[in-house]
Amino acid sequence: MKVAYLGPAATFTHEAALKRFGNEADLRPMRSIADVFMAVEAGEAEFGLVPIENSLEGAVTYTLDMFGQPDLDDIVIVAEVLLPISHHLMMAEGGKLDDIKLLYSHPQSIGQCRGWLRTNLPEVEIQEVASNARAAELVGHQPGIAAIAPRLCATNYGLQILASDIQDADFNQTRFFVIYKQRPRWPLPVFEDAEEGQPITALMISIKDRVGTLHAVTGVFTRYQLNMNRIESRPSKQKAWDYVFFIDFVGQPSQPHVAAALRELATETTWAKVLGSWIRS
Amino acid sequence: MKVAYLGPAATFTHEAALKRFGNEADLRPMRSIADVFMAVEAGEAEFGLVPIENSLEGAVTYTLDMFGQPDLDDIVIVAEVLLPISHHLMMAEGGKLDDIKLLYSHPQSIGQCRGWLRTNLPEVEIQEVASNARAAELVGHQPGIAAIAPRLCATNYGLQILASDIQDADFNQTRFFVIYKQRPRWPLPVFEDAEEGQPITALMISIKDRVGTLHAVTGVFTRYQLNMNRIESRPSKQKAWDYVFFIDFVGQPSQPHVAAALRELATETTWAKVLGSWIRS
Repeated sequence: MKVAYLGPAATFTHEAALKRFGNEADLRPMRSIADVFMAVEAGEAEFGLVPIENSLEGAVTYTLDMFGQPDLDDIVIVAEVLLPISHHLMMAEGGKLDDIKLLYSHPQSIGQCRGWLRTNLPEVEIQEVASNARAAELVGHQPGIAAIAPRLCATNYGLQILASDIQDADFNQTRFFVIYKQRPRWPLPVFEDAEEGQPITALMISIKDRVGTLHAVTGVFTRYQLNMNRIESRPSKQKAWDYVFFIDFVGQPSQPHVAAALRELATETTWAKVLGSWIRS
Repeated sequence: MKVAYLGPAATFTHEAALKRFGNEADLRPMRSIADVFMAVEAGEAEFGLVPIENSLEGAVTYTLDMFGQPDLDDIVIVAEVLLPISHHLMMAEGGKLDDIKLLYSHPQSIGQCRGWLRTNLPEVEIQEVASNARAAELVGHQPGIAAIAPRLCATNYGLQILASDIQDADFNQTRFFVIYKQRPRWPLPVFEDAEEGQPITALMISIKDRVGTLHAVTGVFTRYQLNMNRIESRPSKQKAWDYVFFIDFVGQPSQPHVAAALRELATETTWAKVLGSWIRS
């Protein structure tokens, strides 16, 4: 089974792919989130794995935006993977905390360690790079340079860990989506029929910018007793200050009350799309 | 008048500061959004200027998160600045598009030019840096390296512009907030009393994770005929998958129906705070 994931190897997404698909799967690192979607769309991989949200930093907006691309309309979400995130400060053997002049990491990792960095390395120049693995690679054997990265990177790039678990909160987790291509996209594929657990459905909607339109949408969820786990707004990219909303709620379209709610939502929105349905991880 | 803004010089925030406060003001570049807030909190600057939202990339989540910091509780929003964003590809004199191996820019600029980059520079390595000005500075005289940055950077760092206005959409604008310290924070300061225009108020709220709680909130806005321009959710950073909401709506607390709506909102939320009120730019 071929699985495309956001690369390079040794990142958290790689770890999530191993957790979900195991060592047996043919895991293929991609250069970007867009490339993961396109590999699944083109049939080069059966599944894709992309980060969607971190419990501290919030939504991975680039992943949300991919669901709005017209050429990726057959991509559906079929599962989620939840991964605890541990960040470590690492540098070449022999280096010390006081030597550090420059630090590389991914913007989300920097965000998740901001408190620790402000306290421990307030004067160090921070450079954002495309992945934690790239950060570890850039450190190499150079003195004075450090990276924030997952433990796997220290092993892969021969670095020592100077400080462990430097993330600001101990509830730091990242959620990943498993994506799949299905045409026609409806009815949604069900891969976890036999699994016990709470079903979740993700929607993307567009509403008119007018008093009461969002209230009409939230009213549908309340009437059908559906708990909205999450609502995110994103620019529509059609015109300035115009938004689409991403909503996760408890339930699945095969349940009659959810099907009825979805029909009603279609009348309260200018546009609506079910992105997928899965069992909570 | 001292104004702290997100530096370095020659970035879009600098341009926005010049637009709002003019050449006469003592404009002081800060190293980070947090430093702008802290300069205003400490009284080192009378006003601060920070980006809050781009019409393509969405919220500047780090700015939103600062409003949740308990030690910054006296900071209020008093105005907004709207700036059209134009991105340019620049490199050292004599360089050509085909020579480019490495590109530096700020993550939001990269996001705003993603389509152009995918078409014109699909193989080029992209490195995210903390600011567009830093990107332009890193280019220096090196061949094969380019930056995406504002026009002012080409002048400041002696670079040539290879391609102009490479942003994906022509409605690319960024909104900035002018922040100010006031203790006690209520009633809100009004700096633009005499100005004509639509008043906007920003709120931050927290609600219970339960069926109908968000609907109760949107109901208050509908009952008082208040148009919600925008709703953003952000992790509460208190526990995993727990959120706070940022809401902008048309109206100001000095209007009786808005005051009544705010009193009612207090009963429908577990926590609510008015972040500021200003005239739409």
